[in-house]
Amino acid sequence: MSSTITSQGVAARAREAARALAPLGRAEKDQALAAVAAAIGERREQLVAANRLDLAAADGERPAIRDRLTLDDARTDALSAAVLDIAALPDPSGAVLRTQTLENGLRLTKLRVPLGVVLIVYEARPNVTVDAAMLCLKAGNACILRGSRLAEHTNRALAELMRETLSAAGLPADAVQLLGSDRAELNSLLADPTAADVVIPRGGEELKKFLLETSRIPVLAAAGGNCHVYIDAAADPARAIAITVNAKVQRPGVCNAAETVLVHRDQEQLVGPLTEALAAEGVEVLDGEAAWATEFLDMKIALRVVDDLGQALEHIDRYGTGHSEAIVTEDAVAAERFTREVDAAAVYVNASTRFTDGAVYGMGAEIGISTSRLHARGPLGLEELTTTKYVVVGDGQIRL
Amino acid sequence: MSSTITSQGVAARAREAARALAPLGRAEKDQALAAVAAAIGERREQLVAANRLDLAAADGERPAIRDRLTLDDARTDALSAAVLDIAALPDPSGAVLRTQTLENGLRLTKLRVPLGVVLIVYEARPNVTVDAAMLCLKAGNACILRGSRLAEHTNRALAELMRETLSAAGLPADAVQLLGSDRAELNSLLADPTAADVVIPRGGEELKKFLLETSRIPVLAAAGGNCHVYIDAAADPARAIAITVNAKVQRPGVCNAAETVLVHRDQEQLVGPLTEALAAEGVEVLDGEAAWATEFLDMKIALRVVDDLGQALEHIDRYGTGHSEAIVTEDAVAAERFTREVDAAAVYVNASTRFTDGAVYGMGAEIGISTSRLHARGPLGLEELTTTKYVVVGDGQIRL
Repeated sequence: MSSTITSQGVAARAREAARALAPLGRAEKDQALAAVAAAIGERREQLVAANRLDLAAADGERPAIRDRLTLDDARTDALSAAVLDIAALPDPSGAVLRTQTLENGLRLTKLRVPLGVVLIVYEARPNVTVDAAMLCLKAGNACILRGSRLAEHTNRALAELMRETLSAAGLPADAVQLLGSDRAELNSLLADPTAADVVIPRGGEELKKFLLETSRIPVLAAAGGNCHVYIDAAADPARAIAITVNAKVQRPGVCNAAETVLVHRDQEQLVGPLTEALAAEGVEVLDGEAAWATEFLDMKIALRVVDDLGQALEHIDRYGTGHSEAIVTEDAVAAERFTREVDAAAVYVNASTRFTDGAVYGMGAEIGISTSRLHARGPLGLEELTTTKYVVVGDGQIRL
Repeated sequence: MSSTITSQGVAARAREAARALAPLGRAEKDQALAAVAAAIGERREQLVAANRLDLAAADGERPAIRDRLTLDDARTDALSAAVLDIAALPDPSGAVLRTQTLENGLRLTKLRVPLGVVLIVYEARPNVTVDAAMLCLKAGNACILRGSRLAEHTNRALAELMRETLSAAGLPADAVQLLGSDRAELNSLLADPTAADVVIPRGGEELKKFLLETSRIPVLAAAGGNCHVYIDAAADPARAIAITVNAKVQRPGVCNAAETVLVHRDQEQLVGPLTEALAAEGVEVLDGEAAWATEFLDMKIALRVVDDLGQALEHIDRYGTGHSEAIVTEDAVAAERFTREVDAAAVYVNASTRFTDGAVYGMGAEIGISTSRLHARGPLGLEELTTTKYVVVGDGQIRL
């Protein structure tokens, strides 16, 4: 009961903050961002000390998790720099998408305006606390952050820093709110479709699955990344090997890493060298339907020899998750068919699947990646944190 | 139980049809639309006869409902013409939204592609059965239609006609599926977030409320239309009266009709003539908070005298539903503040709220109006029935 009341308070305060942020110009928002960047520098010791409390409590966690959780001097500086990078991006709010003078003389303009309230649910990575909040702020949105229990002290210190700094800059502190790590509080928000305009998960499959199953607020999520590299009959062999290895090993634990390589049977002679190249990087090559259906997120890859492009397309249609899919081919017709028929957020020709990323795509920064079809698909940058408004100016027009 | 199985079948067939539709070019879709338009003409008697069964069963319904339900010769012709109008619209699918050559030489293209599966839930208006299905088809989507029990015979005849015609044109019949009027079947679909990509309600407040509360599939809906006309201190009196009367009476039962007029106290002398002009059209003028909070959809309007623009903005913020809001003023500064601060799908200066409409906005046709913030806000045309895909072409790029 008490958590319901709290959550309603959080949602109402976020909505009020969003209303105050929406009309702000770029200069006001960028000044606040610069002040946050400066405050991170000034309070570095305090932030690192808070993080030490979290690290001490996370003593038994795996090294990878402890590493992600760590906020040391260098990472604090990187965090501060990232906020300045966000300040340097253009303001998406107010951009004109369409203007038209209608037959009756009405002048219609379609503008970008802030989305409103964004709920971000994420794992124990303190940089997301600041990155996500500041991307939301730049687009004119209020955010509600729900981090991991593991990062509780760090997140509280970062959220307090942002709230105080925004407040000192004349902006509403409630533009950034941090939920407790109590599940009940999150669940109560997720049960109310008006509590936020969108939920963006940053984290593993379990988190996304939980949100997709639970949330009454629309979720923009990458529903897994079972990504494929298809080596076509007309593939350049050296490129095929280089792209497959890169797509698997450059960062195997992320959603745009390749999980299956499909080899056209005319390229069967490539299976040996490809397997060797993968093995040389420590990748285990697997076969069979269980492997095809698995998103390893690890140094493992499935390999299947297919009869033709059609069978590769069927395979991707069946096992793919609509994230990032690549074809290696010198045949323009095969490339065209692949890009047209593969239904995914990003389709690559002769390039690694690893490029699906907001910064790479020229969006400056990303708050996540979506394989949802509604609202935004692919990397979620500042534009994806906006909605639109029609402004229609007349001189007395009435409808006949 | 059996309805769950049926609904899963419906969803799976729709998904398969969507996959077949997605790669189709404009010509193939337009030919199918033309064939549907022709078939409506050819089977006019059969359609009108089916409609007579529905009308006979709806003997006790209000005249307005019986009128909406009616499909006579003239309306059949209009329906056929509307399908040809949709065929004449540009195909949104395949449109290029952005191209960029990245620093590493990758050529990135962001394209519109069909959304996938659209679920439309609507009241007893047979024209929606055809309009909605054909708009979905034109954008390359499969649709699942759920009409009213009142229109059951008409809808079945129309759906059968479309399915047979599509099939004869070599397109999947399951591009158009009609649910039974059984609530359980609809509920089973709404409980599965993967059953469709979006739900679009066409109909009254109760229907929208039901969907917003029940659906696990995202809903694009106009959450009511408590629309306002604000007569500013600097309003032209004749325009103010003409716009207010038009916004109320031109079609009082629709979501973009005005429900409250706010009068700046410097214009208090206008209250008498305005009330007379409204009364002359048969409109009852009401006052008080209960009236401000009511979407009458009837020949009633609330009138409130406000102290200034600020109080008008507060009123709209509190009682408005984010649909269509208008200011009447000759003061550019007041107009600018109103359009910036009012948070609504459409904001008007010196024009009637009644213009919020896909056809008026140059979108050709609309499948509904959204006050949702995610994906699309305002009239939902063909572009709003698409999502996007990134196609990235390289010459061997790997991520470093």
